[in-house]
Amino acid sequence: MSTYSAPLRDMQFVLRELAGIEQVGKLPGYEEATPDTVDAILEEAGKFAAGALSPINGSGDHEGAKWHDSKVTMPAGFKEAYRQFVENGWNGIGCEPEYGGQGMPKVVVAAVQEMWKASNMAFSLCPLLTTGAIEAITLNGSPELKATYLPKMIEGSWTGTMNLTEPQAGSDLALVRSRAVPQGDGTYKVFGQKIFITYGEHDMTDNIIHLVLARTPDAPEGVKGISLFVVPKFLLNADGSPGARNDVRCVSIEHKLGIHASPTCVMAYGDNGGAIGYLVGKENEGLKYMFVMMNAARFAVGLEGVAIADRAYQRALEYARERIQGRDLADGSGPVPIIRHPDIRRMLMLMKSQAEAMRALAYVVAAAHDAAARHPDAEERKRNQAFVDLMIPVVKGWSTETGIEVASLGVQIHGGMGFIEETGAAQYLRDARITTIYEGTTGIQANDLIGRKIAREGGATIKAVIGIMKQVEEALAKQPGEEFAAIHAGFSRGVQALAEAATHVATNFSQDIKGVHVGAVPFLRLMGIVSGGWQMARAALVAQRQLGSGAGDDGFYKAKISTARFFADHLLSQAPGLAATVVRGGAGALAVPEEAL
Amino acid sequence: MSTYSAPLRDMQFVLRELAGIEQVGKLPGYEEATPDTVDAILEEAGKFAAGALSPINGSGDHEGAKWHDSKVTMPAGFKEAYRQFVENGWNGIGCEPEYGGQGMPKVVVAAVQEMWKASNMAFSLCPLLTTGAIEAITLNGSPELKATYLPKMIEGSWTGTMNLTEPQAGSDLALVRSRAVPQGDGTYKVFGQKIFITYGEHDMTDNIIHLVLARTPDAPEGVKGISLFVVPKFLLNADGSPGARNDVRCVSIEHKLGIHASPTCVMAYGDNGGAIGYLVGKENEGLKYMFVMMNAARFAVGLEGVAIADRAYQRALEYARERIQGRDLADGSGPVPIIRHPDIRRMLMLMKSQAEAMRALAYVVAAAHDAAARHPDAEERKRNQAFVDLMIPVVKGWSTETGIEVASLGVQIHGGMGFIEETGAAQYLRDARITTIYEGTTGIQANDLIGRKIAREGGATIKAVIGIMKQVEEALAKQPGEEFAAIHAGFSRGVQALAEAATHVATNFSQDIKGVHVGAVPFLRLMGIVSGGWQMARAALVAQRQLGSGAGDDGFYKAKISTARFFADHLLSQAPGLAATVVRGGAGALAVPEEAL
Repeated sequence: MSTYSAPLRDMQFVLRELAGIEQVGKLPGYEEATPDTVDAILEEAGKFAAGALSPINGSGDHEGAKWHDSKVTMPAGFKEAYRQFVENGWNGIGCEPEYGGQGMPKVVVAAVQEMWKASNMAFSLCPLLTTGAIEAITLNGSPELKATYLPKMIEGSWTGTMNLTEPQAGSDLALVRSRAVPQGDGTYKVFGQKIFITYGEHDMTDNIIHLVLARTPDAPEGVKGISLFVVPKFLLNADGSPGARNDVRCVSIEHKLGIHASPTCVMAYGDNGGAIGYLVGKENEGLKYMFVMMNAARFAVGLEGVAIADRAYQRALEYARERIQGRDLADGSGPVPIIRHPDIRRMLMLMKSQAEAMRALAYVVAAAHDAAARHPDAEERKRNQAFVDLMIPVVKGWSTETGIEVASLGVQIHGGMGFIEETGAAQYLRDARITTIYEGTTGIQANDLIGRKIAREGGATIKAVIGIMKQVEEALAKQPGEEFAAIHAGFSRGVQALAEAATHVATNFSQDIKGVHVGAVPFLRLMGIVSGGWQMARAALVAQRQLGSGAGDDGFYKAKISTARFFADHLLSQAPGLAATVVRGGAGALAVPEEAL
Repeated sequence: MSTYSAPLRDMQFVLRELAGIEQVGKLPGYEEATPDTVDAILEEAGKFAAGALSPINGSGDHEGAKWHDSKVTMPAGFKEAYRQFVENGWNGIGCEPEYGGQGMPKVVVAAVQEMWKASNMAFSLCPLLTTGAIEAITLNGSPELKATYLPKMIEGSWTGTMNLTEPQAGSDLALVRSRAVPQGDGTYKVFGQKIFITYGEHDMTDNIIHLVLARTPDAPEGVKGISLFVVPKFLLNADGSPGARNDVRCVSIEHKLGIHASPTCVMAYGDNGGAIGYLVGKENEGLKYMFVMMNAARFAVGLEGVAIADRAYQRALEYARERIQGRDLADGSGPVPIIRHPDIRRMLMLMKSQAEAMRALAYVVAAAHDAAARHPDAEERKRNQAFVDLMIPVVKGWSTETGIEVASLGVQIHGGMGFIEETGAAQYLRDARITTIYEGTTGIQANDLIGRKIAREGGATIKAVIGIMKQVEEALAKQPGEEFAAIHAGFSRGVQALAEAATHVATNFSQDIKGVHVGAVPFLRLMGIVSGGWQMARAALVAQRQLGSGAGDDGFYKAKISTARFFADHLLSQAPGLAATVVRGGAGALAVPEEAL
């Protein structure tokens, strides 16, 4: 059995050297996030992930959540693990202290969440959805709604869900049909069917707070007529304890490719007269509220890509060290562990380098989010927010697409054993496969990136980011040695390719909207690779400095430089080709008539 | 329900215009393969695939093969489908007429097999393994062995298996430990455990003929001491009918990621005194016999990649036409079918163009195989054999890696529904995932390609192939219009990249054996893309000629040219980056010490 081991050394390196945890700890309200406190949190989280979540990941997948007569039974161990999770105070780590949260900065929460996701992605979805519901109520709810629901939800005693999708309304929420009828007493009766509701029903807590998108009777058509409601599974007694059952039922759960332990529910609202719901904020502004939360949710799913990649790497590395097969190519000795074979090494390095690059980018974006929220200087807040907005689709789209590829490499390293479910490698591939779909497919992320985040502002933010990348390029040029020469060469080509593609997008977006959109996903991939290469280059520069300082840990820093070089040779090398596809690939993709496909 | 529809139009185009079916039909012994006969065969095969195999693909996956007390029960419908398969004479279509086969050329068999694989990959593995066993006996068995087993196996009344792998001996057959002890009467007693035995046990026929690798008592160590034995499940009576049970048992079957209907068996030989076995050919030459069959098996698995890609494309295309979601980007109309969205189009074109390119390459290689076997001119036979040997690892490695990617795109096009098992898209991804592993992983194919197929002969064959590609490049340059300009530009860069990378491999193979091997898989991918681009370029040239001729079917030919252009812009664009990784990527991949990974 392979047990998850939190990559604390790399997490700490990224937090300190790349994401600037010290600066984050100086932001107003984040003073408690001192480096020592953060280290202690990460260490404890790592223990919980390894000790409580990792052991039930494989069994949870095998057993799956079970539905019977509107009730969902979680796999063995999940209820107890969730109880411990709440008891240890993990649920509210990033939430507002006003309602019982610990108020840790997002960059710290990101590292902690990576551990939940890596050790047990299916489990981690429960607190993830609760966090989304908490955020919706925190940002938009009335004081009464907040006081009623937030303390229990932040504590984790009640979980939350997000009910957006309907059979005819997936990516396109304009098509939502669920109805909410005002009762004259301030409450509404909610009717409709929702699908793909993560943890819509389970047996781990004594209440579930559903957030539901629905239309009021006179609402305008399309996205401007959608409102958001709180619909608790159990209505509350006067003392705030769960009382009468509300008119909401889990009709069935899905039989899915992965995340078997996470119940994906079909929810029926109002089959017996109407589910009592409470309006969040104002009528018809539901989608606006969703958009505010979307960044957080998309970032969190991006982290799933990072996490699965790291977990798949750990397992494949263990196997590659243990499995004896074939002879050493150079000296003919053996049989040897397969880690000795160059192609296995290449695959392990693809896994390692991409996991590290994705982690670095995600944490850097998380730290920018903290600065955007709390920096005393308004200009700094604005600058950081623009960076976060630009990068969220990249963290989401690139990390999840790469997470799938890395999980698939993990299967490949296991050879025939990788195809056998008991081995565990295949689960990561199956679990990862949802991450490029939910919270907006990669195509939707890419459209958001080239449209709202680049073309709409004429490429201003991305040009600024490319400017910062060029400073790193200059610093690389000054470093001696073959490794830095390779990093510099690869990164230079990458930045040039990104600049060329970004200019193409910004220039041609309006006059060739479909052609430019053909290049959206290749552009997102290009931007992910170059952004990851940027962070690996920064990491290599830091490592070089540390190596010279005699501070010790030379092995780690040398490996970091070599890993950055690998990333340049094997990933950044793809950048010019991706730019070529972005610039030239539009017409050919649209030339074949629909009926001739 | 999506039903498989054989892509007859494209198959016929490839067979006639690219693979030269007319020339194949003129080879001695293949005279019956006239274009009309071939058309009739393909049409009938398409009907059988659609009518008998496609309907039980999803149910077979869901139900799976079941093991109980040494017996395996196949999913509902499989036994009946197999009976029809045999009754219709499909099993022996490519086998020697001397023992009841139809002796069709490999290029025809390839098209037919693509249909079995596309409509029901799990089913298709049974005749695939039987074919392998037939070939082993045909090429190396004594006249008596042939007469005893071949008629029933070619007919399909008995199936065959290949028993190579043991727990400690996967890719490395030098580690095989199974024993075969001569009994003095010409027979042997076989002892040992074999794993990953496809269709090692099932209930579709009244005998199963196992081919087993084992060591005789005085055999030398390593691969030079392995012999091949026939071990029937039931020993034969004097009249040739199955009689007493032999000492071989299926101990269990694996719980796998995919191909659930194909029983993957753990086989125990000789637990009760020894399984009676009959030597094939000579002692200690078993591995040599295996190598001869390996090309055929690897080619067949490569076809699985083609087949799954096409099947996943068909299903995704149907969904993309039906699913209504979102608005047209250009004119705002809608909601529209998602096929209208540029990123969905891009994904569909990635699926379509790669399926067509892989099919074309595979059939061209199959036709070369036929010429290598039957051409009256020895030089032509030799030239064709060298081409086949070079291309087999590309067909196997590139088509299977691409098959997985295409199946994953199919899931993505389905959005959330793609993650739900009932939809059927996920099955292709799960089934495809084994294809890059069995019959030699992609790493093993790539090592074979750069080592035995390129470096060992100083790159002679690949240089000749690149020469032929350059002729196509010249022909492209003469075509008018934007589409051919794009095809020419992409293909030129691709050929140049391939030439550069091949020279690097041939030049540095000996002095930097590990560094060059780091680039093996990127090189294989490069060669696959450029070879696929070569076939698409040839196809576009043919299509242009046909368009000018007024022969009709303009829609098909126009789509072919546009598809070739897409392939150039979106796939061939990757070639220079892959070459860069091959040339520069060795050192970085090996720099991090094993213990620092």
